Amino acid sequence: PYCNEISPHLYLKLQFAPFSSALEAGFWHQLTQKKLNDYRLDESPKCIKGYYYNGDPVGLPTRLTLEFSAFDVDGPTPARCCPALGMLYNTNTLDAFKAADKKALLEKEAKEIWEAIQSGAALKNPSVLCRFILLTFADLKKYHFYYWFCFPALCFPEALKIIQPPVILEEVFSPKQISALQEAYDSLCIKRGITAVPFFLMKYTDDAVHMALLEDWEVTVGVYDPCTLSQHPGWPLRNLLVLLAKQWGSKLDVVEVLCFRDRTLQGNRSIQHSVLFQVKLPELPNNSVCLKSVGWEKNPKGAMGPRMVNLSECMDPKRLAESSVDLNLKLMRWRLVPSLDLDKVVNTKCLLLGAGTLGCNVARTLMGWGVRHITFVDNAKISYSNPVRQPLYEFEDCLGGGKSKATAAVDRLTKIFPGVSAEGYNMSIPMPGHPVNFSQATLSQAQKDVVQLEKLISEHDVVFLLMDTRESRWLPTVIAASKRKLVVNAALGFDTFVVMRHGLKKPPVTAPGVPGSSLFSNIPGHKLGCYFCNDVVAPGDSTRDRTLDQQCTVSRPGLAMIAGALAVELMVSILQHSEGGYAVASSSDDRMNEPPTSLGLVPHQVLDHYEREGFSFLSKVFNSSHSFLEDLTGLTLLHQETQAAEVNHKPTLHQNLFHSS
Amino acid sequence: PYCNEISPHLYLKLQFAPFSSALEAGFWHQLTQKKLNDYRLDESPKCIKGYYYNGDPVGLPTRLTLEFSAFDVDGPTPARCCPALGMLYNTNTLDAFKAADKKALLEKEAKEIWEAIQSGAALKNPSVLCRFILLTFADLKKYHFYYWFCFPALCFPEALKIIQPPVILEEVFSPKQISALQEAYDSLCIKRGITAVPFFLMKYTDDAVHMALLEDWEVTVGVYDPCTLSQHPGWPLRNLLVLLAKQWGSKLDVVEVLCFRDRTLQGNRSIQHSVLFQVKLPELPNNSVCLKSVGWEKNPKGAMGPRMVNLSECMDPKRLAESSVDLNLKLMRWRLVPSLDLDKVVNTKCLLLGAGTLGCNVARTLMGWGVRHITFVDNAKISYSNPVRQPLYEFEDCLGGGKSKATAAVDRLTKIFPGVSAEGYNMSIPMPGHPVNFSQATLSQAQKDVVQLEKLISEHDVVFLLMDTRESRWLPTVIAASKRKLVVNAALGFDTFVVMRHGLKKPPVTAPGVPGSSLFSNIPGHKLGCYFCNDVVAPGDSTRDRTLDQQCTVSRPGLAMIAGALAVELMVSILQHSEGGYAVASSSDDRMNEPPTSLGLVPHQVLDHYEREGFSFLSKVFNSSHSFLEDLTGLTLLHQETQAAEVNHKPTLHQNLFHSS
Repeated sequence: PYCNEISPHLYLKLQFAPFSSALEAGFWHQLTQKKLNDYRLDESPKCIKGYYYNGDPVGLPTRLTLEFSAFDVDGPTPARCCPALGMLYNTNTLDAFKAADKKALLEKEAKEIWEAIQSGAALKNPSVLCRFILLTFADLKKYHFYYWFCFPALCFPEALKIIQPPVILEEVFSPKQISALQEAYDSLCIKRGITAVPFFLMKYTDDAVHMALLEDWEVTVGVYDPCTLSQHPGWPLRNLLVLLAKQWGSKLDVVEVLCFRDRTLQGNRSIQHSVLFQVKLPELPNNSVCLKSVGWEKNPKGAMGPRMVNLSECMDPKRLAESSVDLNLKLMRWRLVPSLDLDKVVNTKCLLLGAGTLGCNVARTLMGWGVRHITFVDNAKISYSNPVRQPLYEFEDCLGGGKSKATAAVDRLTKIFPGVSAEGYNMSIPMPGHPVNFSQATLSQAQKDVVQLEKLISEHDVVFLLMDTRESRWLPTVIAASKRKLVVNAALGFDTFVVMRHGLKKPPVTAPGVPGSSLFSNIPGHKLGCYFCNDVVAPGDSTRDRTLDQQCTVSRPGLAMIAGALAVELMVSILQHSEGGYAVASSSDDRMNEPPTSLGLVPHQVLDHYEREGFSFLSKVFNSSHSFLEDLTGLTLLHQETQAAEVNHKPTLHQNLFHSS
Repeated sequence: PYCNEISPHLYLKLQFAPFSSALEAGFWHQLTQKKLNDYRLDESPKCIKGYYYNGDPVGLPTRLTLEFSAFDVDGPTPARCCPALGMLYNTNTLDAFKAADKKALLEKEAKEIWEAIQSGAALKNPSVLCRFILLTFADLKKYHFYYWFCFPALCFPEALKIIQPPVILEEVFSPKQISALQEAYDSLCIKRGITAVPFFLMKYTDDAVHMALLEDWEVTVGVYDPCTLSQHPGWPLRNLLVLLAKQWGSKLDVVEVLCFRDRTLQGNRSIQHSVLFQVKLPELPNNSVCLKSVGWEKNPKGAMGPRMVNLSECMDPKRLAESSVDLNLKLMRWRLVPSLDLDKVVNTKCLLLGAGTLGCNVARTLMGWGVRHITFVDNAKISYSNPVRQPLYEFEDCLGGGKSKATAAVDRLTKIFPGVSAEGYNMSIPMPGHPVNFSQATLSQAQKDVVQLEKLISEHDVVFLLMDTRESRWLPTVIAASKRKLVVNAALGFDTFVVMRHGLKKPPVTAPGVPGSSLFSNIPGHKLGCYFCNDVVAPGDSTRDRTLDQQCTVSRPGLAMIAGALAVELMVSILQHSEGGYAVASSSDDRMNEPPTSLGLVPHQVLDHYEREGFSFLSKVFNSSHSFLEDLTGLTLLHQETQAAEVNHKPTLHQNLFHSS
């Protein structure tokens, strides 16, 4: 199969300089994207486009280049370049890559060229003569790319004899002829509206040069030749000669070939070093059986075999990390969840209130889902007991009194994945029953905290409640409900936990008032309650007078990981629902057989007051004991009636309970 | 209440140098341990023991010292020290500490001293005169200790007038008398068998000194006086004078007091600077109502108030981290799970096969449980996609081709908690269907790997199977079963997972062959199967020819955290069971209504072969296709019969299935 390649001791046989494949990193990058997002497990051949350049200085191999743009077959081709279309066979496994039947692939492609020659289609569109095959396997975990190029060339049954050895154009053409040639070529390109005509015919006299497309056969055949060797044409001529033999073999015995070389010499365009020679066209067999073909590229060792590039070494590591993180996520869409809308997840801005055991685990799971925008709020410092349970902190973070959790969490996320966009706010969240009006200074700090929290909630899409007290969840619950933000709430017991979403009220204007037909079936998202909806005691100061085991969240260590992970998975599932936070809650028989109670309305009274009165309402809540919120929401009345019911032991009174507040 | 303390412009009133409390770090450390392990939420007063030293040089305050040994009230007292017993009131909360009724505590203790004086008990055991109260709150999260000492002293209704002002002993005693005094004191101590007699009586002539216990009243009263002031006695004399007034007030008007000071001067024992004075004893009221008392210590600012020490700043941070990590765990035992045996968990040696997504999460949860001994086995390097899902790795670990997971995981654990004892083995686990006999070198590597794995499994208590292929779990399953080690296995799907324990065979000798009465009820631990028990295909090479999404564990990111956490919680629950790995599996109706099948016996045939033939059996497994293991375990026969059953559609044949292999 190498008989037609260059061999220095045979001067009478025409030999061709083969293409060298030149695959740019941009090509592999784009292949990676296509594989991840479009092809996935699809192994069917894909049409891609490369090009060869006719402007290289002497010494460079004849390159067939594939770059970023290879997958855009209708896109533009660079100046002085001829496009070459090819078929990409990208296998799913290295084994499939190795096992691919190279012979069959080459024969298939050669047959198409042959048929285009036979039918005359190649005459109209000679670029079909310059097709290629690219067999690849992309190991996207390691950024190793295995590939093997083939530039199919049909082989005449016998060698091509050189009648007139190659001469440099300027030795036989006058300067006038040369400039006429250049002008003629450019005119042809302009006429065809392309950057370079790969093959053409030429007729010349002492005074002039005329040029035409292949269809108009006259005298000299021209090839836009990327080869830089003075004694050999490049590969594009090979299949052209077969075409000539087929088309005009009966009329022609010897054909003159111009290897049109469109170079730059000392800053000036130079075609003087184009090459002219004559070759005898062998006869083709009488039958129309496809000729033998060659074309698989040798590897850098000179052997027949594939090549491999390891792009992980030359890529920017941070860029590499970003691609790799996307990889696992995108793989989900290949087979398991093709409809998964990853962009919805990745672009969600998450506000984590609490950067402790739950906060750290939620942040880690969000990172696993590729979420880029994570903001922490916490006012605590890292203590020595934290690192073994709070997976964003280490021993070093505890020294010297401990770093602030909110900012240390941000530092850690950046160390895990430099592409993350994380922020930390070392601030307190004002709480009911934790008075703020001791002094003017304290009050205005609380006011600033409320304003900051409102701003943060506005700027995010999902609010996670991950604090260690009940009352610290109150203010963000109210603000997020008012701003119609999705709230995911997680709380730990010793071996129990709650992970829930808060109901998302319809926007005030568009709420259509859905009829209550669903009271005993599925609950629409806008009718779901919040963390406080089932409480019969308003939140107050739960930190006062607590023993050590009540101060620390004493829970089985595995619990925070489970609850944190579930909170994020809940968020993802809600985001994937077509109605988002308004998604209906699935029916559960156990839960739904109880009639909904008016307690479900409690927080909405609070919401009304917050939206009407703002901070003046909030400061009343912070400074009051339980009774203020309990009076407001009707819980006081509830308690009175419950007590009355207990005293009287009258079930009727107890039933009234659900209609009174 | 300060009227009897030192005031330089009053020379005629006797004033006493109060004790200064001296609490050593060892005391707080021991209090921490007692609180965590014994007292927990118990706030009842505890008897503790301090001492005062009679050897201090001039200038030091009179210290009442509590150290490590304070909780051992029957333990020895250091030389030249008098013991002082006290009551420790350790509150659960800072609020309780603040709210404690200091007046009532003092009065209670003063009353007991008074009653001991009244009854004469103080005469027999005068150490009751030197009691103290210690009120504490230990914030074990921050290592802040709040405390307030009280040295109750009964107050005479009027001031104590000095009749003969204090003189230094050597000014009035001859050297002979001094040495006789010293000899007499030492004899008394030897006679009583204690290091120091706190109070004594003395009779002296020009030639000699005689000494006796209080019961034998004669002339001069001696007090073993820790005070270094030349003009004032220390606090121990105060209650003694009340005792004297009560006992001999009617006989005595003026009492001579020797403040026996047992110092070292220029390397020699020196009692020359003891102090002698006479004081007029006031009359006690006729009624037996307890005298007023004083005694709460001033804080360093000179005000009446508690003190606080922050030990977190002076403790070795690594030691601090260890204590803090234990804290959360021990808190579980205070209220929630008093019977929890933490030592069983903490001392368990865990072998983690796989340091990927599952391995990292399992290790983190083990750290949360305080497990100290963790060993990783993995042969992979950290890639860019790992850190966001594998919580022991960071971006930096991926650079330059990636660190080895097994050793990087160890580094991270040490960064999280320096007290951990972790090891990493960067090695492969030989697998069925992954041939090892390509060359002599490869074979011996596999043999080394088997030997290493056998050694590792022997040295650990629990083996976690956390790999990403099914067949890599096969060898450790067999070895661990043979060595009777508890195996916890976790495996991930996309949104499903398995977390299970393997059955733990009874040791060969002691297996009593429990009758099969439990076939349809709870399954005892030694009858449980392993990961491979329900399989109908033997493990083989599942990595060959896999597509990218099959190579990576494509799963919802939260899943590994959930499965990893559950695997550890399962281990902890098993360890807490009185029968450990032999614990019965709880009944589940769904599962138990199916009859157990003979498939449950499959791995035990494998086990027999492994125990008989060792590596020669294993190398057959590694090098063979599925069929070797399937033939051995009867799965081949099962498949044939299943096929036959499917062909014949005869349910009888299908039923035979469960009795044939």
